[in-house]
Amino acid sequence: MSVNTFGHLLRVTTWGESHGPAIGCVVDGCPPLIHLSEADIQPFLDARRPGQSRHTTQRREPDQVRILSGVFEGQDGIQRTTGTPISLMIENVDQRAKDYQRAAYRPGHADYAYDAKYGIRDYRGGGRSSARETAMRVAAGAIARKISSEVQLTTYLSELGGDAIDRGAFDADAINQNDFFCPDPKAAERWAVMLDEARREGDSLGAVVECVASGVPAGWGAPIYAKLDAAIAQAMMGINAAKGVEIGDGFAAARLKGSENADAMRPAKDLGGDTPDFASNHAGGTAGGIATGQPIVVRVAFKPTSSIRKPVATVDSDGTETEISTTGRHDPCVGIRAVPVVEAMLALVLADQKLLHRAQTG
Amino acid sequence: MSVNTFGHLLRVTTWGESHGPAIGCVVDGCPPLIHLSEADIQPFLDARRPGQSRHTTQRREPDQVRILSGVFEGQDGIQRTTGTPISLMIENVDQRAKDYQRAAYRPGHADYAYDAKYGIRDYRGGGRSSARETAMRVAAGAIARKISSEVQLTTYLSELGGDAIDRGAFDADAINQNDFFCPDPKAAERWAVMLDEARREGDSLGAVVECVASGVPAGWGAPIYAKLDAAIAQAMMGINAAKGVEIGDGFAAARLKGSENADAMRPAKDLGGDTPDFASNHAGGTAGGIATGQPIVVRVAFKPTSSIRKPVATVDSDGTETEISTTGRHDPCVGIRAVPVVEAMLALVLADQKLLHRAQTG
Amino acid sequence: MSVNTFGHLLRVTTWGESHGPAIGCVVDGCPPLIHLSEADIQPFLDARRPGQSRHTTQRREPDQVRILSGVFEGQDGIQRTTGTPISLMIENVDQRAKDYQRAAYRPGHADYAYDAKYGIRDYRGGGRSSARETAMRVAAGAIARKISSEVQLTTYLSELGGDAIDRGAFDADAINQNDFFCPDPKAAERWAVMLDEARREGDSLGAVVECVASGVPAGWGAPIYAKLDAAIAQAMMGINAAKGVEIGDGFAAARLKGSENADAMRPAKDLGGDTPDFASNHAGGTAGGIATGQPIVVRVAFKPTSSIRKPVATVDSDGTETEISTTGRHDPCVGIRAVPVVEAMLALVLADQKLLHRAQTG
Amino acid sequence: MSVNTFGHLLRVTTWGESHGPAIGCVVDGCPPLIHLSEADIQPFLDARRPGQSRHTTQRREPDQVRILSGVFEGQDGIQRTTGTPISLMIENVDQRAKDYQRAAYRPGHADYAYDAKYGIRDYRGGGRSSARETAMRVAAGAIARKISSEVQLTTYLSELGGDAIDRGAFDADAINQNDFFCPDPKAAERWAVMLDEARREGDSLGAVVECVASGVPAGWGAPIYAKLDAAIAQAMMGINAAKGVEIGDGFAAARLKGSENADAMRPAKDLGGDTPDFASNHAGGTAGGIATGQPIVVRVAFKPTSSIRKPVATVDSDGTETEISTTGRHDPCVGIRAVPVVEAMLALVLADQKLLHRAQTG
Repeated sequence: MSVNTFGHLLRVTTWGESHGPAIGCVVDGCPPLIHLSEADIQPFLDARRPGQSRHTTQRREPDQVRILSGVFEGQDGIQRTTGTPISLMIENVDQRAKDYQRAAYRPGHADYAYDAKYGIRDYRGGGRSSARETAMRVAAGAIARKISSEVQLTTYLSELGGDAIDRGAFDADAINQNDFFCPDPKAAERWAVMLDEARREGDSLGAVVECVASGVPAGWGAPIYAKLDAAIAQAMMGINAAKGVEIGDGFAAARLKGSENADAMRPAKDLGGDTPDFASNHAGGTAGGIATGQPIVVRVAFKPTSSIRKPVATVDSDGTETEISTTGRHDPCVGIRAVPVVEAMLALVLADQKLLHRAQTG
Repeated sequence: MSVNTFGHLLRVTTWGESHGPAIGCVVDGCPPLIHLSEADIQPFLDARRPGQSRHTTQRREPDQVRILSGVFEGQDGIQRTTGTPISLMIENVDQRAKDYQRAAYRPGHADYAYDAKYGIRDYRGGGRSSARETAMRVAAGAIARKISSEVQLTTYLSELGGDAIDRGAFDADAINQNDFFCPDPKAAERWAVMLDEARREGDSLGAVVECVASGVPAGWGAPIYAKLDAAIAQAMMGINAAKGVEIGDGFAAARLKGSENADAMRPAKDLGGDTPDFASNHAGGTAGGIATGQPIVVRVAFKPTSSIRKPVATVDSDGTETEISTTGRHDPCVGIRAVPVVEAMLALVLADQKLLHRAQTG
Repeated sequence: MSVNTFGHLLRVTTWGESHGPAIGCVVDGCPPLIHLSEADIQPFLDARRPGQSRHTTQRREPDQVRILSGVFEGQDGIQRTTGTPISLMIENVDQRAKDYQRAAYRPGHADYAYDAKYGIRDYRGGGRSSARETAMRVAAGAIARKISSEVQLTTYLSELGGDAIDRGAFDADAINQNDFFCPDPKAAERWAVMLDEARREGDSLGAVVECVASGVPAGWGAPIYAKLDAAIAQAMMGINAAKGVEIGDGFAAARLKGSENADAMRPAKDLGGDTPDFASNHAGGTAGGIATGQPIVVRVAFKPTSSIRKPVATVDSDGTETEISTTGRHDPCVGIRAVPVVEAMLALVLADQKLLHRAQTG
Repeated sequence: MSVNTFGHLLRVTTWGESHGPAIGCVVDGCPPLIHLSEADIQPFLDARRPGQSRHTTQRREPDQVRILSGVFEGQDGIQRTTGTPISLMIENVDQRAKDYQRAAYRPGHADYAYDAKYGIRDYRGGGRSSARETAMRVAAGAIARKISSEVQLTTYLSELGGDAIDRGAFDADAINQNDFFCPDPKAAERWAVMLDEARREGDSLGAVVECVASGVPAGWGAPIYAKLDAAIAQAMMGINAAKGVEIGDGFAAARLKGSENADAMRPAKDLGGDTPDFASNHAGGTAGGIATGQPIVVRVAFKPTSSIRKPVATVDSDGTETEISTTGRHDPCVGIRAVPVVEAMLALVLADQKLLHRAQTG
């Protein structure tokens, strides 16, 4: 079982609550001799950090990561991984100022479920169930990228509040030029209006994150229970607020005919290699759970933020009827800040698969 | 890594190819003293068996299961599990008559991917990547049901070829009264027409399977990487031809506002217990990865069968251009026979979660 | 947990009881393209098979192994592994003739402990706790050897009934020329006398098995909890009747001074490689859990057979006082037939380590 | 694989090097609602801490543990485990003052093996291979004790430099009244003289640690690969400098006859329970890998400290011949400080087994 550990050969174990002294993770199984310093990790944490636009929570978390083990600086002054566990830690700076009290069960949150399971819960800011834990996924993902450096990842919001991007207007450069990781600048404009309105109403919106991994060699992955699709689905559905995942055409494939869904192949003369040329990629880069060499395409549905100002009926832990209105500084759309998390999880899956593939096939 | 093993404490390891002498599985970690004989398993295999209507493949596989270990008949004549590994085996009856040759890579199949990974593949009927392997999941699932006997599972097709059931006409009794595990008799009639037409055209259709688990106690599951949602997603996406999975409202939740998606709670006076009464179940029975006591609702998208008579361009293993038309006896909609497989996988997940939950919380 | 599964990347799951219809195992994670047929496995089973001399049990078990999956015969007529799970099965030929009854708890056997744990046990011939299970370890070990073919294994009895071999008289060729896998022909003669006497007295003797693995590359293994020493100790102590294990000088090292125990190194000029030349091998081929390139030396202590004709006081499952005298055909020294089992377990550990090492270090 | 993780359901992942900023561990899978604060852990760390007598290294490591996550203080002011991962950290206080240089490979140390495996190593004080890592095992073990509080552990040195205790003079109270965890006061006096002499000569001595666990319920443990014996052996052989492990009579059992080694049973009338009364405990508390209810008896052999002042021939990492004399502050007998580590590892194994047993059998 691996409640707080992710991965088979590249294993990430995270710990920490939103309002404890710190959060952290241990990355075990990393190959040795990879150049690694805090500077390789911090930019990804910065991309996830809240408070960077009016569309995300206004909390201020500097999220400065420290590497506590697993690297060593050689005589050339370059710090490298040693093959031993890499411990990362981020101190929780502001948590002491907060004044949390045990409150009613917040609908959509894990409050009631934690109590039902453990008979106890750290109710300060969500405790372990807070999205704060995802900072460590992003940090670990930065290491994973260095392990599977042949892979390029592109991640963006493809839908917000039910409003999808125009795929004809897809502009990869636009992704980092708006507050939404949106590849369609016009959609980004609409989304800003929608989100402002939701915030005014004390409400929140859902979103769909899409992640494309190019450069994944044909052969990574495995059949049956360890299918690449299964590993990805597990990774994504383990992210806070995720409620659906699809590979390639996903649910839309269930509405196609076999002749429409077929990814025809032809000899890849230009490529000079073994990989055939695929006329389409309905499958999203996998067949039988194994990478085909085509881009891996993943989509993840995020529900709207559960913490909303609009009051909702609920009960407290004594079973008394009450109503809750969450007034703190919350993301009006958790899907936005999920973008770097989805990318990190795919990076972790692929690095693990790279190690697993070479273990069996040499 | 667990390529051919599923589960943490209740572990199923399957083996066998579609055209080898047999297929089988080992179920390890089963609690002792559970009444178990072949008669507990066979009905579920019969439900999955092909050739039961014109809408599934016309192959004849008796799929008679044998229990080779892990049970013992006491002096009362009742056979019980002993806590040791349960070995199940089904002999492949007809496989010798087949005359398979190494052919071109079938688009949508794992042929090319297996060659890319392993440099070798058993090309007789799909070998290991054949849906035949799912028979063992169904067999193992029958054991899982006995472990988590507090859970009731209802599974059906909710969509075929893009045509959805009318939820207002939902009739659980209808599910086993048509060829499609369809709870809406009128939809079943439309689907018969659609599938006949697809078959005539040498084409195939996709489908969506829905599975509902009632009676899951609040508290099963776990946070973070082992979320119940993540375990279910992994289980479902490891089934042949699955391309998407969602829990509760899934992708539709991404289109709701927070106020619409909130599952309000109120005191469950009538129930007399600790579980609150939920006004809705958008979440599909989980919060923070832990069961809330509400029904677990899962939907899985199955792509249309890749083996179609309509010709598709492809290459053979030498990289030569060719075209393929698959003329064998194939299911025109793999989603139909996936129904018992989805149910078995959920049974396996839930039984495993039951053991995990009592391990940690006593 | 892996009650019935051994290994991390090369995983063996065994099943079956001594008096069920068959025993078997599934070997998962095997690299593809390895030549493998029953003929590669059978000789090792034959070496373990009982009834080959008067010094082992007179039961007749042909132990004919069948490969049921995971191999494929190419057009060159050579059967190779495909990277999918290899299922091996041996039918239990004579088990029906037996007439076992639930008897008193046999001291030294697992009878009472199984009842205490599971509340049920298959009492026919020891059921799952029978040494019969080790046949599958030997079968799986034959596959492991092919994976780590750079390693040479030499295994023998170094002590029987407290009488040790003369290491000055060590003759590797003698090992297979006597009934005891004994490298010292004179010791073998003494042991024959000792064992004849023990058998006459209705008693049994213990033994120590020693296994030496040459050719293990420096670097295999790992630090901390996955030390090569730890993996080997786990493997060996999981064999029936094993009660002690040591690496290199083992317990004798605890009686040496640091200056005596030091394995001095010097440049290995002749070898032309990176491996230093070690002046001694007190460590038994490991340092910090990692192979040094020196031979791995393992010793395993086996207690005397618990099934003896001499009566021993015991209780039956109702708690009634009784006495038991085991009159069946039992090995008077289980250590003898443990020799191929120890070797197989070391082969399994080393093949697994090879895959783990190349996973992390490429 | 679990290089830096120990356990199945109670999992400890350690990290850190002897001269990095800190060492730590994450304890995952702990049951909720257990009272836990630093005060429960610190005494065990203090017992392991160096510099408490002239017979251990004179380094000063305050080893002050902090709990960073996984506990929560309720309104009653009592801090309890929450079921989420417990992160423990100890800062390395003195490590900056040290001035280590990459030196020749120290015989008996992991220096050469790490380089062979990883191509890099943190050469400051042994880096990851330093016994400093065992502090975290002791800390985690303190948590394990609280999980399996029905078990009582007694651990001591039974042999030092080949000089064994007189079992007739065994005095449990004496264990903590001398510098050697020695239950025989006279042996402790002899050992002081022996160790003073070894230190004067620039040499070191080995030792044997014995650990007895009473109160382990019959039924914990499992058959085959997960035998309690196998789990214990793996745990012990993963400790630095351990070279041998035995359960019960161990290697001595290999020199007994079956009739001498038999642990006769009789009805335990006085006990009123199901557990029979055993006339002896040659088996050391296990049968078939499962606890019998008798005390678990484990012995672990520790080689003499490899770091000695007496010069030993070696090579440096360039392959140049040299000689090494280790002049730092090293334990002249690592076995002494291994006592709390052995006890902690057995506590971890038993707590894990408790969870595993109740998972399967309820």
